[in-house]
Amino acid sequence: MSGIVTNTQVTLVQLDNYGPWTVTPSPRREVDLQTLQSRLYADLSQAIGMRDGYTFFTRFDNMVAVTNGLDLEDHARIQESIRNRYPVTVSLSIGTGATPADALVEATAAIQDEGSAQDADRSELLLGQPVPESERSDDDVQIAHFDVVDATGKYTDELDAFSSFIHIEQGYAELMKHMHVAHDSLSFFVGGDNIIAVCPGLSEDDYAEAVEHVRETAGVDLRVGVGTGASPHDAGMGAKHALELAREDETDVEGDLH
Amino acid sequence: MSGIVTNTQVTLVQLDNYGPWTVTPSPRREVDLQTLQSRLYADLSQAIGMRDGYTFFTRFDNMVAVTNGLDLEDHARIQESIRNRYPVTVSLSIGTGATPADALVEATAAIQDEGSAQDADRSELLLGQPVPESERSDDDVQIAHFDVVDATGKYTDELDAFSSFIHIEQGYAELMKHMHVAHDSLSFFVGGDNIIAVCPGLSEDDYAEAVEHVRETAGVDLRVGVGTGASPHDAGMGAKHALELAREDETDVEGDLH
Amino acid sequence: MSGIVTNTQVTLVQLDNYGPWTVTPSPRREVDLQTLQSRLYADLSQAIGMRDGYTFFTRFDNMVAVTNGLDLEDHARIQESIRNRYPVTVSLSIGTGATPADALVEATAAIQDEGSAQDADRSELLLGQPVPESERSDDDVQIAHFDVVDATGKYTDELDAFSSFIHIEQGYAELMKHMHVAHDSLSFFVGGDNIIAVCPGLSEDDYAEAVEHVRETAGVDLRVGVGTGASPHDAGMGAKHALELAREDETDVEGDLH
Amino acid sequence: MSGIVTNTQVTLVQLDNYGPWTVTPSPRREVDLQTLQSRLYADLSQAIGMRDGYTFFTRFDNMVAVTNGLDLEDHARIQESIRNRYPVTVSLSIGTGATPADALVEATAAIQDEGSAQDADRSELLLGQPVPESERSDDDVQIAHFDVVDATGKYTDELDAFSSFIHIEQGYAELMKHMHVAHDSLSFFVGGDNIIAVCPGLSEDDYAEAVEHVRETAGVDLRVGVGTGASPHDAGMGAKHALELAREDETDVEGDLH
Ligand SMILES: Nc1nc2c(ncn2[C@@H]2O[C@H](COP(=O)(O)OP(=O)(O)OP(=O)(O)O)[C@@H](O)[C@H]2O)c(=O)[nH]1
Ligand SMILES: Nc1nc2c(ncn2[C@@H]2O[C@H](COP(=O)(O)OP(=O)(O)OP(=O)(O)O)[C@@H](O)[C@H]2O)c(=O)[nH]1
Ligand SMILES: Nc1nc2c(ncn2[C@@H]2O[C@H](COP(=O)(O)OP(=O)(O)OP(=O)(O)O)[C@@H](O)[C@H]2O)c(=O)[nH]1
Ligand SMILES: Nc1nc2c(ncn2[C@@H]2O[C@H](COP(=O)(O)OP(=O)(O)OP(=O)(O)O)[C@@H](O)[C@H]2O)c(=O)[nH]1
Ligand SMILES: [Ca+2]
Ligand SMILES: [Ca+2]
Ligand SMILES: [Ca+2]
Ligand SMILES: [Ca+2]
Repeated sequence: MSGIVTNTQVTLVQLDNYGPWTVTPSPRREVDLQTLQSRLYADLSQAIGMRDGYTFFTRFDNMVAVTNGLDLEDHARIQESIRNRYPVTVSLSIGTGATPADALVEATAAIQDEGSAQDADRSELLLGQPVPESERSDDDVQIAHFDVVDATGKYTDELDAFSSFIHIEQGYAELMKHMHVAHDSLSFFVGGDNIIAVCPGLSEDDYAEAVEHVRETAGVDLRVGVGTGASPHDAGMGAKHALELAREDETDVEGDLH
Repeated sequence: MSGIVTNTQVTLVQLDNYGPWTVTPSPRREVDLQTLQSRLYADLSQAIGMRDGYTFFTRFDNMVAVTNGLDLEDHARIQESIRNRYPVTVSLSIGTGATPADALVEATAAIQDEGSAQDADRSELLLGQPVPESERSDDDVQIAHFDVVDATGKYTDELDAFSSFIHIEQGYAELMKHMHVAHDSLSFFVGGDNIIAVCPGLSEDDYAEAVEHVRETAGVDLRVGVGTGASPHDAGMGAKHALELAREDETDVEGDLH
Repeated sequence: MSGIVTNTQVTLVQLDNYGPWTVTPSPRREVDLQTLQSRLYADLSQAIGMRDGYTFFTRFDNMVAVTNGLDLEDHARIQESIRNRYPVTVSLSIGTGATPADALVEATAAIQDEGSAQDADRSELLLGQPVPESERSDDDVQIAHFDVVDATGKYTDELDAFSSFIHIEQGYAELMKHMHVAHDSLSFFVGGDNIIAVCPGLSEDDYAEAVEHVRETAGVDLRVGVGTGASPHDAGMGAKHALELAREDETDVEGDLH
Repeated sequence: MSGIVTNTQVTLVQLDNYGPWTVTPSPRREVDLQTLQSRLYADLSQAIGMRDGYTFFTRFDNMVAVTNGLDLEDHARIQESIRNRYPVTVSLSIGTGATPADALVEATAAIQDEGSAQDADRSELLLGQPVPESERSDDDVQIAHFDVVDATGKYTDELDAFSSFIHIEQGYAELMKHMHVAHDSLSFFVGGDNIIAVCPGLSEDDYAEAVEHVRETAGVDLRVGVGTGASPHDAGMGAKHALELAREDETDVEGDLH
């Protein structure tokens, strides 16, 4: 690890008793479920993003957000707004910790303590405590933006669309496992050929090794830009600019790293 | 294979020159890209769903729809509506064939023939021909709805949210590859613990073997309901009802199969 | 009246028991109500528009759509989709008639017969019968697109934004009353300085007189393009092209009129 | 006037060069324009609402927001988010003043100084200065929530839907003019039978007289709840609770007034 100590605040968003709802009184039209899920995600992404947080769709019924900068009141407002506009409600659980994986363990445990995700009596939980404003710092969040090298030339324009997708997907499947086990990081597919990972203070070597791991196990070439900041947006924008640099210089890893 | 001969019509939806757009003039806020992508998907899902088609988000910049029942005019209208409401445009390419994989190969080839996905001069293609109305039949589409057995009890309520997600994701990664290679099928994660596969006329044994494959390679228990129909919605709703039956009877595979 | 006999099919969309919902258990955040209402309207506009219908937001809790071309099944699907994605439901009532005003009288009466708009037990009505496919013709819908002459130069760039709005609004208030009383037409503000009226087969003189009426009573200069077609979209697009012509030729009324 | 001195901050939202865009290269489908406009409004309502502001759709191409509590950075972020997700852009102009009408005059003048609303070279203006954080107070915003007495019984359940709408609309047309001329207030129809007015510190008599004016000129019975607060949301929620009180007590005006 590098000298940076991060302090990631994650929020687990869990749809309340959603499984049973999807088949009550009989199975609901799939296109409506798809629309509901993706719009709910879009709304969370905007609402949390207005305060510089990031939201990942993950499983859609369980989403993960990085929320450094959002306090309990912000969370409550978002929860209320969902209730007012959707036929489903959400529980929110905040966890904090030096590694994103730890923070999410904490957030999940708190929500599990209150009952099952499919418990009809357990709804709209609002749990956990955000990082106090006084303890926030510019090193709190580290974001790595991974991108497949020349995905257009190697996959999109070459293979049929599903075969391309399989390559990207297998690259993601390998990276997500590796970053979790080896680096306590949470990696999310964000569309196209892009994966965003929320990491503790990792070093250049850590990233180089992760890129190498995916090349070996899935045969997919990645490069990565890394950024650090007080909020996910600040860190993420740093990561994007670092990635642009990596593209120009044709390097594997860029960013303000040790 | 069973005696059914399907006639799947797929549409490849490709965002035109989207990669460059995301970084022009400089990298765009990730939350806005996430919102744009998920809303565009939601709109396609509704528009295509109004005519009984299914849309899958896939990579978001390349989406796959099953569009039996939509003609060229329907496609043109959807394309125009996107242009009128989004800062990006889409190309649409229709492919048909006895297997979904073949249909998508055809659709992709047609689009690749016209230039690169990142070609600034190549936009709003509308390619291919739908299945003629006179040739449509009740066996045209087979949909399999896969679901993890007791995901709530085994994962969601037990493990931390990312570890749960890893299990689901690895199950998906295995299933998607297997169904493609072994059965010319296209499998899509649709949220929660659900995967929807578009298949040619597969047999009960084919499905049983796929479930077994995922159990062995990823350690994830699936069950599956299968439906057949003239449209994705008809087939998909049949699959959902069959899945409910499989839940009740605690079987692995249900549906009107041979 | 001109020789054209229209056959307008209107659908009254009424939110079920919406007033009480907005204050249960206590008043809901206004911004959420605004978002809910405008998105519900947007979804109806798209869903109905995919089949060439027009939807007007009217009061938002009671919306009016012109639905020539949509059958009962289309209506049922839209109703179901709202139920699946919103915390509120809608009742739909179809009316038909030679004049749009008559058609809406019929649609409203049918819904009122079933109980009050704020009756908790009255929900998701689906009433009335569409124009049979065999009786549809190219003269069924007449749409007039009214537009303020040089609104930018006279109002938007000249007055403060509220004073501009007052002028437009007073022009609309006069036009809507006049077209209803004198011509059995339904006129809707559609944003900017535009008003769309659904009319029976009116003559050029009728429109000239309406324009004159608004000039005298509200001091607002309008011009209007008129179109006729089998669907609202066909008629409306004809009206838009006629309006472009009126702009070019600086005339008050254009269109295929008698 | 009462002793309260308000300090309303309004933001004029103007779509850049929107008129020409709607007809380039030829008239765009009306349903797409309707969807675009109402979704853009919904997004602004949520984004501004997340920071306790209110947005009114007004003409859709020119919207008015009350933004006490939003600084320049918040405005810039919203502007950027629209650019990233819509085919159109917006200019934003902030005005402040003791009366809402004055504040909007200031905001409009600033935007007009930079060119025409239909000037292709004038886009994404961000003008004006918010109320400094240090000068904000609990009396800055006064909101009045007007509501028609028994609209369901008198109109919705009695008349045809358009005749009901005419009554509500005429009530609104009278109130908006009166409140502007007599009380420097900005009144907006917000759906159903509701009108929200942004007012300077008016007295109980002022409101009683406005209600009386609408009764006489339009024959529509209103009641009104009034609230005051540091933000539109605080004032508006106060107004809603006061309106509930007025409903219970069957009074015309309620609120913390002098
Ligand atoms: N979520 C997200 N997706 C992006 C971003 N930039 C690009 N993408 C996606 O990545 C896809 C591929 O674009 P690129 O990565 O630019 O293309 P490429 O062919 O791989 O080229 P290089 O990455 O430059 O080697 C696009 O279609 C987008 O879906 C981004 O900032 N965020
Ligand atoms: N897209 C989609 N997702 C669904 C559907 N039904 C359930 N889900 C998802 O699946 C998740 C888990 O729900 P279930 O599958 O009912 O729960 P489970 O614990 O696995 O229970 P069993 O499947 O009954 O063994 C839900 O949270 C939803 O996200 C569906 O029809 N479509
Ligand atoms: N709903 C809708 N609104 C439109 C349409 N065309 C223009 N508008 C609105 O009308 C406003 C004013 O635009 P114009 O009517 O082109 O401008 P103008 O200054 O009045 O100029 P002329 O009408 O050409 O005299 C725009 O900002 C839009 O809000 C349309 O087709 N549909
Ligand atoms: N925007 C908005 N609209 C509301 C609100 N409350 C009610 N409405 C609208 O007002 C309509 C009529 O509801 P009510 O005002 O409760 O009904 P009413 O019959 O007039 O009854 P009373 O007002 O109690 O006399 C509803 O359908 C809604 O559209 C609100 O808080 N905000
Ligand atoms: Ca790439
Ligand atoms: Ca399951
Ligand atoms: Ca005009
Ligand atoms: Ca009322």
